[in-house]
Amino acid sequence: MSSSDVMVGLHQKALTLLQEDADNIEKLIQIQMETLTNRRCPLYEEVLDTQMYGLSREIDFATRAGLLDEVAGKNILSELERKLAQLYEALAKSRNE
Amino acid sequence: MSSSDVMVGLHQKALTLLQEDADNIEKLIQIQMETLTNRRCPLYEEVLDTQMYGLSREIDFATRAGLLDEVAGKNILSELERKLAQLYEALAKSRNE
Repeated sequence: MSSSDVMVGLHQKALTLLQEDADNIEKLIQIQMETLTNRRCPLYEEVLDTQMYGLSREIDFATRAGLLDEVAGKNILSELERKLAQLYEALAKSRNE
Repeated sequence: MSSSDVMVGLHQKALTLLQEDADNIEKLIQIQMETLTNRRCPLYEEVLDTQMYGLSREIDFATRAGLLDEVAGKNILSELERKLAQLYEALAKSRNE
């Protein structure tokens, strides 16, 4: 394997790992979306914030290590932030009803 | 550069980056150690916990990406945890005085 093959493989692996972590957070968001009526889970917001912070540290590390384009990392995070915002909006609505 | 040179370089870079992050947390611990008498900083514990969590996610990612030995990652974290324990012990003592 050439050195550029190694780097391409590592870039791909880094992206796959980070996307898996992002997918896990998205699942948490989905679960919360589907149980909007369940008000007995006040910790979900803190759990999601913590998971988002952890993922942002992983992405920051991967970027600094040269394994991830800065733009690709920002895209993963902003996509999740968009979904989080949808969740919070839906929660706010369900509280006002 | 051969592919194994690339991997050695990336391993070294990953370790350097993680050690830098660990050093920054250690600095936070040191600062808190030196200002034990300052009780007006109740957030330090939460900040340190958050930083430790972030570092543990970076180390976990680096290990999964094949850039870091599991043992090396555990060593970085356990060294910091030892210092954190010393800080909490010193804080507990200073409260009892």
